[in-house]
Amino acid sequence: MADNAHGSQPVVRFETHPSRYQHLKLSFDGAIARLSLDVVEDKPLRPGYILKQNSYDLGVDIELADAIERLRFEHPEVRAVVVSSNQPKIFCAGANIYMLGSSTHAFKVNFCKFTNETRLSLEEACAESGQHYIAALNGVAAGGGYELALACEHIVLCDDGSSAVSFPETPLLAVLPGTGGLTRLVDKRKVRRDLADVFSTLAEGVRGKRAKEWRLVDEVAPKSKFDETVLARAQAFVSSTPERKGPGVTLPALEARRWEQDGRCGADYRYVAVSVDAEQRLAQVTALGPEGAPPKTAEELRRLGADAWHLRFARELDDVLVDLRFNQPEVGLVVLKTAGDGAAVRAWDEALLTLAKDDWFAKEIVLKLKRTLKRLDLMAKSLFSFAEPGSCFAGTLLELALASDRTYAKSGETQAFIALSSMSFGPLPMPNGLTRLETRFLGEPGKAEALREERDFIDAETALEKGLVTFAPDDIDWDDEVRIAIEERASLSPDALTGMEANLRFAGPETMESKIFARLSAWQNWIFQRPNAVGERGALTMYGRPERPEFDWRRT
Amino acid sequence: MADNAHGSQPVVRFETHPSRYQHLKLSFDGAIARLSLDVVEDKPLRPGYILKQNSYDLGVDIELADAIERLRFEHPEVRAVVVSSNQPKIFCAGANIYMLGSSTHAFKVNFCKFTNETRLSLEEACAESGQHYIAALNGVAAGGGYELALACEHIVLCDDGSSAVSFPETPLLAVLPGTGGLTRLVDKRKVRRDLADVFSTLAEGVRGKRAKEWRLVDEVAPKSKFDETVLARAQAFVSSTPERKGPGVTLPALEARRWEQDGRCGADYRYVAVSVDAEQRLAQVTALGPEGAPPKTAEELRRLGADAWHLRFARELDDVLVDLRFNQPEVGLVVLKTAGDGAAVRAWDEALLTLAKDDWFAKEIVLKLKRTLKRLDLMAKSLFSFAEPGSCFAGTLLELALASDRTYAKSGETQAFIALSSMSFGPLPMPNGLTRLETRFLGEPGKAEALREERDFIDAETALEKGLVTFAPDDIDWDDEVRIAIEERASLSPDALTGMEANLRFAGPETMESKIFARLSAWQNWIFQRPNAVGERGALTMYGRPERPEFDWRRT
Repeated sequence: MADNAHGSQPVVRFETHPSRYQHLKLSFDGAIARLSLDVVEDKPLRPGYILKQNSYDLGVDIELADAIERLRFEHPEVRAVVVSSNQPKIFCAGANIYMLGSSTHAFKVNFCKFTNETRLSLEEACAESGQHYIAALNGVAAGGGYELALACEHIVLCDDGSSAVSFPETPLLAVLPGTGGLTRLVDKRKVRRDLADVFSTLAEGVRGKRAKEWRLVDEVAPKSKFDETVLARAQAFVSSTPERKGPGVTLPALEARRWEQDGRCGADYRYVAVSVDAEQRLAQVTALGPEGAPPKTAEELRRLGADAWHLRFARELDDVLVDLRFNQPEVGLVVLKTAGDGAAVRAWDEALLTLAKDDWFAKEIVLKLKRTLKRLDLMAKSLFSFAEPGSCFAGTLLELALASDRTYAKSGETQAFIALSSMSFGPLPMPNGLTRLETRFLGEPGKAEALREERDFIDAETALEKGLVTFAPDDIDWDDEVRIAIEERASLSPDALTGMEANLRFAGPETMESKIFARLSAWQNWIFQRPNAVGERGALTMYGRPERPEFDWRRT
Repeated sequence: MADNAHGSQPVVRFETHPSRYQHLKLSFDGAIARLSLDVVEDKPLRPGYILKQNSYDLGVDIELADAIERLRFEHPEVRAVVVSSNQPKIFCAGANIYMLGSSTHAFKVNFCKFTNETRLSLEEACAESGQHYIAALNGVAAGGGYELALACEHIVLCDDGSSAVSFPETPLLAVLPGTGGLTRLVDKRKVRRDLADVFSTLAEGVRGKRAKEWRLVDEVAPKSKFDETVLARAQAFVSSTPERKGPGVTLPALEARRWEQDGRCGADYRYVAVSVDAEQRLAQVTALGPEGAPPKTAEELRRLGADAWHLRFARELDDVLVDLRFNQPEVGLVVLKTAGDGAAVRAWDEALLTLAKDDWFAKEIVLKLKRTLKRLDLMAKSLFSFAEPGSCFAGTLLELALASDRTYAKSGETQAFIALSSMSFGPLPMPNGLTRLETRFLGEPGKAEALREERDFIDAETALEKGLVTFAPDDIDWDDEVRIAIEERASLSPDALTGMEANLRFAGPETMESKIFARLSAWQNWIFQRPNAVGERGALTMYGRPERPEFDWRRT
């Protein structure tokens, strides 16, 4: 198995642009956009497999994530998005099996996490941005293909005797549908559990009216009326959704300056810098606060566009996080720091949230911040925040500390200060649906809300008393405590830490979203380790070969 | 690794009795019981490890489960239970590491599931039976030792400079505390997540006042006042808890008749029969309904005692379920059948629930049914129910079908009938806190409740229409459909099925209990597969040896 070898996956970059898409076609007709899958077989992200039947790999999903994001920012006029296929008889065959079979365990896990986040961003666009996704299944939607449809708000299946929805993972590959499928079946679409059981073990899937009866799709249409049905549905979404005033805001390339020096490497963005010390297995991410006065009107914000601090910061941090996941597997600890003027962060926060009440662009920025911070919550790396004098853990940037497993704030003669803002109290919930303050103070009901009264900057010692930071060493102890904390963390088993953090970070309620990352993904990760799937004679390994897989029949 | 070998674990039996306890001492002083851990080092369940420092194995936990259950049925006068240790300076060192290190993956997983169920039954006794457990930590409570304390309602820690609570699993063994610990820290005790992070990486743990400040314990007491403090707390529980009128009901041995014949084996109990066909990897469990009229008064029920149908049935089914888990690892599918008079089941159900309003014994029987059916929900085996003519899937026994992944009911000339009872609508919730009907009909709000009007027996075809069964083949198709369903299920990967079922069975909300089995256990199962824990140089394998473990540092 590749798992124990330090298999070298190629470096993955996540920035792209419609002009460079290889697999997706994005077209527009007024308020209706069309996102068509037309995956090019011989353009996999890395050599070694062929993307037959609109199957996808990370390269395809990076385009999908980019398209969803650009639709939200660059095309506010769009109110319905039809997701379909340009290939005959096949909508999408799901994640490419040979790609999965030849990937390391870590890559599989990170791939599924990223595709899950992409599907959730699609659902968020439906719920929050007035962009309603319709899955137009003009052929077979298998595995990840059906999971993409499940993320859409409405599913139309062609009733032509061959188009079907299916989850062949368990019967054919001995794994689970890995992108939220089982959870969305029973928790989102509320398919009855016994029907879900039958469906999920039926390699050929379910067609036509039965798919509707079982709640697997919303609508079936004969081939002759399929396009018409999909269009009518899109038009219905358009007419029931309030218009958003244009123009859109273009998202330019981030143009990070990447560097390597003395065994370290990193990247400098405008508001985020990252440096990686491979030997220490440590990454340091520094966020810079905004400069100058915030925009006061929607027009001023529009003039800033993608240069607006919150948006630029969120896009940069997002890019750093996916880079750390895929390209820095040995990094176990991410140290988060900030620099700048906390008062400016707070002023920008209040300005943005005021504008977000009426302005779609301001609202989109807040949603992008929310998604990015959820990505941080879900990092399979330890997160420590260090607040030093000159830092600006305030409002939006305080969320970095609140997302961390621990926060060290420097006390003594030159203290660190932190501060809350309206961003702390609702706009940026975690995957469990609570704010980071609510999750933190689950044991002290009312405390998170009472902190709204904290309008001043809070020094390190007071922050310690109030439970907002973990430790507040003074000048004398700071260097030693920080060094020891880093060294100790770096010495612990990376797997045990991943499991531990996944359990300690998300106290309180579970949502469909958190269930996908907790229950479903954790089980899938387990199965991705099992010889019955990935062993030499496992079903995932053997797929497409003439021999049958061999199973160890003991149930665990 | 033992994982790929068909390692032969010895057969485990789960029935025991205080007269046979080797490791626990159970004593009584009026309304206060004392459950003292005094684990005998050289009496492990199987040879190969020594139970030092009150560490436990499955043998110890079987005694604990038995003690909790007997306290509820046999000692209604008990209102407080002090859990302590008879060994100096150590409360309990947790699950025995050498036992874990030398167990198969499947055994580790099943062991943790069983110990989790035992801790939950202890919590249920506190919440529902007026038996309040106090953990009297007169020494170190490490790992599973502290997890046992976490399950108790109140934790008193001796402040003697050496007694401590700790989770050394991650720092020393590269695994997680496996018995609900992380979930109980942040979800039950609501320990702040960053403090939980520090605590869970600190091998030596936390002592004295800091343990109380961090909410890890409820009370600390100096050595000189420790016994007095614990006693006062027990007395306070006693005086605030209503008395339950005795006498208790003795739980006799079940005396199953076990048999082996022609490659099959099985056991006959009074109301449950199980037969295992190893070649087909199939177990069939048949439940018999009650005979005669139900008891009409608490006195009549008391005269029946442990022979009361519901109680006897629940205890027998429970014994079958744990036997299938530990002793029949190759069985992947459990077929559930019933035989008897459905009207009698319903009459007994209504009688029991009426009595349970006032009578502690009737209530305890309902709680035992609830626990047993949750054990069924959590089986890592597929569950199919087959309702044929002569079956009695009614009320309590209908829960077997509703807990199943699928139900086949025979239609046609001689049909099967099913029926609901008051047991269907509340007394027997699943681990997610919903009834099985509510979970089933999550997509049709109000439907579960509306079914209260269904007072008649429901024939197979009507049951199919109402969504209460999955398929209703007639006489002609029945044999083929059933045979094919069994064969198909038996051909699928056992791991994928376990993961699939764990995700499809528990739609809707999550509770602390369901989080333990979903999020926490799934992650632990993953870690229990990882080379960093169980590989040749993994931390669990290497524990106690002079060399340090070796880790693959890549984070997943």
